[in-house]
Amino acid sequence: MISKKMKESIENSSMIRAMFEDGKKMKELYGAENVYDFSLGNPNTPPPREINQIILDILQNEKPTFIHGYMNNAGYEDVRSAIAESINKKFNTNFAVQNILMTTGAAGGLNVILKTLMDPEDEVVVFAPFFSEYRAYAENYGGRLVVVPPDTADFQPNLEKFKEKLTNRTKAVIVNSPNNPTGVVYSEETVTKLAEILREAQKEFHTDIYLIADEPYRELVYDGVFVPYIPQYYENTIVAYSYSKSLSLPGERIGYLVIPDEVADFEAVVSGAGTANRILGFVNAPSLMQRVVAKCLDMEADTDGYNKNREALYQGLIEAGYECVKPQGAFYLFVKSPIESDKEFCQMAKQHQLILVPGSAFGCPGYVRIAYCVSYDAIMAALPKFKELLLEVR
Amino acid sequence: MISKKMKESIENSSMIRAMFEDGKKMKELYGAENVYDFSLGNPNTPPPREINQIILDILQNEKPTFIHGYMNNAGYEDVRSAIAESINKKFNTNFAVQNILMTTGAAGGLNVILKTLMDPEDEVVVFAPFFSEYRAYAENYGGRLVVVPPDTADFQPNLEKFKEKLTNRTKAVIVNSPNNPTGVVYSEETVTKLAEILREAQKEFHTDIYLIADEPYRELVYDGVFVPYIPQYYENTIVAYSYSKSLSLPGERIGYLVIPDEVADFEAVVSGAGTANRILGFVNAPSLMQRVVAKCLDMEADTDGYNKNREALYQGLIEAGYECVKPQGAFYLFVKSPIESDKEFCQMAKQHQLILVPGSAFGCPGYVRIAYCVSYDAIMAALPKFKELLLEVR
Repeated sequence: MISKKMKESIENSSMIRAMFEDGKKMKELYGAENVYDFSLGNPNTPPPREINQIILDILQNEKPTFIHGYMNNAGYEDVRSAIAESINKKFNTNFAVQNILMTTGAAGGLNVILKTLMDPEDEVVVFAPFFSEYRAYAENYGGRLVVVPPDTADFQPNLEKFKEKLTNRTKAVIVNSPNNPTGVVYSEETVTKLAEILREAQKEFHTDIYLIADEPYRELVYDGVFVPYIPQYYENTIVAYSYSKSLSLPGERIGYLVIPDEVADFEAVVSGAGTANRILGFVNAPSLMQRVVAKCLDMEADTDGYNKNREALYQGLIEAGYECVKPQGAFYLFVKSPIESDKEFCQMAKQHQLILVPGSAFGCPGYVRIAYCVSYDAIMAALPKFKELLLEVR
Repeated sequence: MISKKMKESIENSSMIRAMFEDGKKMKELYGAENVYDFSLGNPNTPPPREINQIILDILQNEKPTFIHGYMNNAGYEDVRSAIAESINKKFNTNFAVQNILMTTGAAGGLNVILKTLMDPEDEVVVFAPFFSEYRAYAENYGGRLVVVPPDTADFQPNLEKFKEKLTNRTKAVIVNSPNNPTGVVYSEETVTKLAEILREAQKEFHTDIYLIADEPYRELVYDGVFVPYIPQYYENTIVAYSYSKSLSLPGERIGYLVIPDEVADFEAVVSGAGTANRILGFVNAPSLMQRVVAKCLDMEADTDGYNKNREALYQGLIEAGYECVKPQGAFYLFVKSPIESDKEFCQMAKQHQLILVPGSAFGCPGYVRIAYCVSYDAIMAALPKFKELLLEVR
């Protein structure tokens, strides 16, 4: 018998995966070119061309027992220093080696920091719509997820409701900007107010509340939008970063945590995170990829393709009559379902060979997520299908 | 404030790491060549020479969005099939793609399977001496570690005491052969008896008890010793394997779980393990390395160097007057401390520039672990130090 909790997790966490599996079946049935699969956030842009050469150079110039070997659980010190410096250059911060902990992607980083911080019954606050795995991450360590309902006007966090959700058990708040699933970037005004609310709550409850910024989409932004660097607005901020999207290396599982000197209980958090990395079984972030990303720090993600997709899809959907906040980042559009049930709408979409994910999977029913990290041709071919679908619904 | 549990973990789980850090300080003080660091199981043998060419071929011949991209949480299907076939060839088993789940090393695999199986208060039984992280792995998911005391005569599991430790809350038993820290290989007699005891306990308690075989040292064996393949002796066996030692890729975090069709609740275990891989933040085993190990299936680990070290160290220590069971696998010697307190003995050893790990770190006080995955020269230079140390003690 497997664990009861795991049985629930299998049932609850499979909505995105289920759509993906449906898509796979449909591709076998109708041919891959006739199915428009917008279900997964799997980058279709290749990594920078230089990556192969960088890997080759590392393999040729460094000792194999070094590049494939164990190192400090926090990662190679030279890699962590290089990352700290590159962040400092970008954001005028003052990080050093001790502030960076290499992780197995952002998902690994989030688990590491939650394991470090959470006692059973502690609360983790998230803003709907939110990446559904956050619930599992919090519950992995006996925590409870507290969901702030969405403000569907612009999908900025609902700060009024946020205030009401904070208690003396609030250990952490997770924010994700640019956001999955909405593509919205949290404004400087939002982040400033959010920080004020947290500071007041800390005073009121005499606790430390950690703000965890999940930032795998940081570089995927459009129209020159400003993305506030959250540690500059709130001292108890920990950043979870991933190279999955920015360098298109999602399968390699490489990212890092930023733990600023200013966070409460800094030394314990750092040594806890190193220990968590080890005892959760990550041990360390994959070694060769640590060395690779350290040589890609100045590379810019190629967002042109995503931007072209975004414009075409957004314009096409609006013209067809759909409602959607125009996303400024990531590679998702969060569209209002034209019928009440988003799940039913996704079922209808399948009849038009469109694979979408219901907003219910993100704690926001009544919407559907379209992941546009696909080819431009797929977008252009899918638009008439979206039109047909809306006509059918109406 | 970090979690209370994590505070304990930091304090408890740092003995090996503390010795390693001491060693680092001593190297700065006395020069690296004058410190004999036997604290860490970090292979000093490089990976097979062919690895670089294999990586290069993969990079040149496969699509980058494929080799660095997301795949099924269980891993690439062709990789899993290839591994299943290679196990079948070696052990005359009948595994297929659905029985293999790629993991982030064996440590990742153990966390994945424990997360899948365990309800709070479930018990995980281990045999002392045992790899100290097992305690954390079990407790990560609310479980309780139950330790069977050692049989120091030959360091085979103490099966009499084992029987007494099984209850209706026993969810899993972890065995590790070749063993860290003793280097002992569990005999066919041991494994057969252990399986019988488990079958009886399952009947008595009307439960399923999973036997988890942690096998990162499987190929590191000497003198042609026979290592029983445990799924052939007990139907509820799950194997956690790692390429860390066999291919000397410990930093890359690549391994797999074998979940045979025969295990109780097979489909739930498989789908739970895939879900666990995702929600613990591993998501999938590092992608490029999955493709690499699939091309290294017939490569044999180079154990000659370790064997030479083993013989020299064992003979040297015995001649000096130490007591030790001759190890048949892995790269550890577990030596009886000549004074009662193993911790005190390790402190004294430091005065002779020898860095050892107290057996207390493995639930077996009165012994010390010597990791001989170092250079032969270091062994030869260290032997006179061991002699001096014993003379001082006496």
